[in-house]
Amino acid sequence: MITKNQIKLIRSLRIKKNRIKHNFFLAEGEKIVDELLNSEMILVNLFSTSEKYNKLEKFIHLKNPELKQISNLKSPNKVLAIFEIPKPKEIDYNSTIIAFEEINDPGNLGTIIRICDWFGIKDIICSKKSVDCYNPKVIQASMGSTSRVNISYLCLEKIISKNQNRVVAADLNGESISEFRFDPNQIIFFGSESNGFSKEISSKIKRKITIPRYNQNIDSLNLANSVAIILSEIKHKLTEK
Amino acid sequence: MITKNQIKLIRSLRIKKNRIKHNFFLAEGEKIVDELLNSEMILVNLFSTSEKYNKLEKFIHLKNPELKQISNLKSPNKVLAIFEIPKPKEIDYNSTIIAFEEINDPGNLGTIIRICDWFGIKDIICSKKSVDCYNPKVIQASMGSTSRVNISYLCLEKIISKNQNRVVAADLNGESISEFRFDPNQIIFFGSESNGFSKEISSKIKRKITIPRYNQNIDSLNLANSVAIILSEIKHKLTEK
Repeated sequence: MITKNQIKLIRSLRIKKNRIKHNFFLAEGEKIVDELLNSEMILVNLFSTSEKYNKLEKFIHLKNPELKQISNLKSPNKVLAIFEIPKPKEIDYNSTIIAFEEINDPGNLGTIIRICDWFGIKDIICSKKSVDCYNPKVIQASMGSTSRVNISYLCLEKIISKNQNRVVAADLNGESISEFRFDPNQIIFFGSESNGFSKEISSKIKRKITIPRYNQNIDSLNLANSVAIILSEIKHKLTEK
Repeated sequence: MITKNQIKLIRSLRIKKNRIKHNFFLAEGEKIVDELLNSEMILVNLFSTSEKYNKLEKFIHLKNPELKQISNLKSPNKVLAIFEIPKPKEIDYNSTIIAFEEINDPGNLGTIIRICDWFGIKDIICSKKSVDCYNPKVIQASMGSTSRVNISYLCLEKIISKNQNRVVAADLNGESISEFRFDPNQIIFFGSESNGFSKEISSKIKRKITIPRYNQNIDSLNLANSVAIILSEIKHKLTEK
């Protein structure tokens, strides 16, 4: 049985300012919730139509219509949980990091978190105007990888000026990634989905890299795909060394 | 001014059987429509709030509320056009081809068409139960690349048995793509987004390839990202030769 206050709280967590106020975020669906339960994340409440969670102290049993009432999904999938937003970890500047000037699409950020998890990338840096990584759509798209990738919202200008010798920008005109010599502690910057880099950021990053293109009629690749290709190339090269 | 019959026709084209009946498909937004106008596609009608198309014989001027009435987009973008569905081209079996056992998500197929365009891949083969490549969401996600990539809906079993020496399956357990020697006429098979390969297809393809994983906690990569990484690797290797 779910209370009116719980419904109100859950719905409020769709909005960033309420997530910040309560320091909570939402996760839905068995696969994602189970991965988060197996991580360091702290569970606040778990609402489910399935009895498989009934050993959890924070478990609240729901009927299907109740789950539908609180779910953000078109087809609610058995469980919705509230977790505490963990404290951001310290960034490990000794390994590959990716940074986003302005990532807006929650699905993109979620997919990218998953790609980073696959390639063992531990840190993502986002500008402060980027989409919140605890947005429910980010959590859903990241498929449980959220707990294994650390996302920090920082001032990019400072990162660039402090790390001038290892920042590179993924751009349309740069050195081919197949020829570029990646260092193990490179910070790779990506522009926004629709506008690429601002002049401010672009002018501050001297080295640019490019995914070789085999057809001049096409002018861009999807951001998540670009990240996937570049991380695959970096890992391939660094592992070969 | 748009007629009631035109509104009816446009709305009907959201459904596959009506697209087949009329042999028409829809495209929306300036970038996509402009790319298709510059291709071999045959325009049927173009409805726009912008006067920039007024030299086209098939141009029909609309007011914003009229465009909203026919648009599939949340924020309609100036133009919607009806094009003829072109005849499928012959497949070029002398170059890299990608094939999908069952691709269901239109956004995924559209993104993959764009990736193929970027890497100069001319042919995609889909099983007959895959999403229709003239679905409006596929057209939108492909961002105009539709006209440059040929998609054929065929019986995969036949393709496999005829091309046994060059089919490979992208799977979770296979030879690492960084070590695999790709031939220039390889046919790379991908399973469905949620279920991977069926046993029938998987058992028929002897050679499997895998994207190396650097974290054992994650069990899958998004389909479009996998395609992007594998095509980048193939192009990189074949160009190096």
